[in-house]
Amino acid sequence: MDTVSENRCFGGTQGVYTHASKATGTEMTFGLFQPVEAKDGPVPVLWYLSGLTCTHENAMMKAGAQAWAADHGIALVFPDTSPRGTGVADDDAFDLGQGAGFYVNATQDPWAEHFQMWDYITDELPRALFKRFALDEARQGITGHSMGGHGALTIAMSFPDRFASVSAFAPICNPMESDWGQKQFAAYLGENTALWEPHDATFLMREQGFPGPVLIDTGTADQFGDLLKTEALAAAIATRRQPATLRMQPGYDHSYFFVSSFMEDHVAFHADAMYGVAA
Amino acid sequence: MDTVSENRCFGGTQGVYTHASKATGTEMTFGLFQPVEAKDGPVPVLWYLSGLTCTHENAMMKAGAQAWAADHGIALVFPDTSPRGTGVADDDAFDLGQGAGFYVNATQDPWAEHFQMWDYITDELPRALFKRFALDEARQGITGHSMGGHGALTIAMSFPDRFASVSAFAPICNPMESDWGQKQFAAYLGENTALWEPHDATFLMREQGFPGPVLIDTGTADQFGDLLKTEALAAAIATRRQPATLRMQPGYDHSYFFVSSFMEDHVAFHADAMYGVAA
Repeated sequence: MDTVSENRCFGGTQGVYTHASKATGTEMTFGLFQPVEAKDGPVPVLWYLSGLTCTHENAMMKAGAQAWAADHGIALVFPDTSPRGTGVADDDAFDLGQGAGFYVNATQDPWAEHFQMWDYITDELPRALFKRFALDEARQGITGHSMGGHGALTIAMSFPDRFASVSAFAPICNPMESDWGQKQFAAYLGENTALWEPHDATFLMREQGFPGPVLIDTGTADQFGDLLKTEALAAAIATRRQPATLRMQPGYDHSYFFVSSFMEDHVAFHADAMYGVAA
Repeated sequence: MDTVSENRCFGGTQGVYTHASKATGTEMTFGLFQPVEAKDGPVPVLWYLSGLTCTHENAMMKAGAQAWAADHGIALVFPDTSPRGTGVADDDAFDLGQGAGFYVNATQDPWAEHFQMWDYITDELPRALFKRFALDEARQGITGHSMGGHGALTIAMSFPDRFASVSAFAPICNPMESDWGQKQFAAYLGENTALWEPHDATFLMREQGFPGPVLIDTGTADQFGDLLKTEALAAAIATRRQPATLRMQPGYDHSYFFVSSFMEDHVAFHADAMYGVAA
């Protein structure tokens, strides 16, 4: 693992690192914020999965999360959203290929060779992080924005013992029923929609739910609101009686101006849950 | 004036606007954050001047200032750092030409035609803002980063009745004695160094100081520390007995990770001073 940069930030360290990934067969880059408390031993860790077109860098720069993570003494992980490079398949559309991995393991050509983001995020990157940094594997939370909210919700529900809490900002909630999902799942996973189900948050919420708390914020002025299918997940939550808070925030859109406005709440939400696990 | 974008942000609005500038002879772009209180009448306004290579966008995206401005009910202005465009002179170096206006009125070719940033920032843009938006001309503060800290300090000391307070993050403090200054002042203002003096914060601090409070934060690990000449301004402040706080922040560098770490303090500092003016 190589260090690209380390900056002092809110008393801790905002780092960027690269490592060779077996899952994707590429060099992968991620950001990691470590609060000052990490010097004294493992700290809780909050995963932040980003949306379409983002790299590891967008949320690290624009979400304003480090301030609140420092307050609570927790680390933040900012993974990339796909494999990248000249030898990696891509598409002219912004919502397929590089920058648009959708947190699945592709089985279809030309994507299968490198687009193994599910394995990368749920297995390889965590193992690399817990080996190298002072992070507490027993205290993890996960959040994300848009495509990353989809990733956070599906991963949390697939690893219910791993995460104390899950939240999302304007998540893609029901990709099997949306143009943000059907196109990509067909490309990455093929036409058999039974294989899409483990990657649909609404499907998972209907079938199994999540044992911990769930927080979702989505703006009433979200320009992609029709693609998110928030209503499907809201219904699944209510039907299931899933402990969850869903807030439709008046006037907010899909941007990082929205994300940053509610980041304090999300970090505090996860901190409460993560500290509660070991308390 | 045209609206490029408006996003709901911390209950208020983060806007980006363009207007035709007579000072620069170009279209100029700026960001403006208005807190929710602006709906009810004029609010205090904090100017944020950016550093080398920045546009109106960098601080708006990365400084994390909107959270604190919303808390205090104050507006934020994020101007560009130079005129731009295909018809505007430029230089291969990152620290001269477009993105590097240094907040002066150029008198030398090829810069004189468009590089009139002093007039733009101190006269034309304020008049346009106060005409169009609910901003309180009697309550203004100014801050900035690096080259923008230089701009904030020199403008504040040149308009002591206009600004209640001035602060800076890692400002260029003594450009007449630094490679970040001599090169640009020679290019923009010519070889007569007497004409440079009104644009040197250390010179102005020695000669006149500032009637209001001054706050300066600079990191001990600033990779451009030798170019900033912080020591010259520190000496001038102490010699003058200028009311000021200068903090050398241990371990911090020149990045926006440093700026954002102390933004809360700076916004609170200005809010205290601005509200005090009319209180």
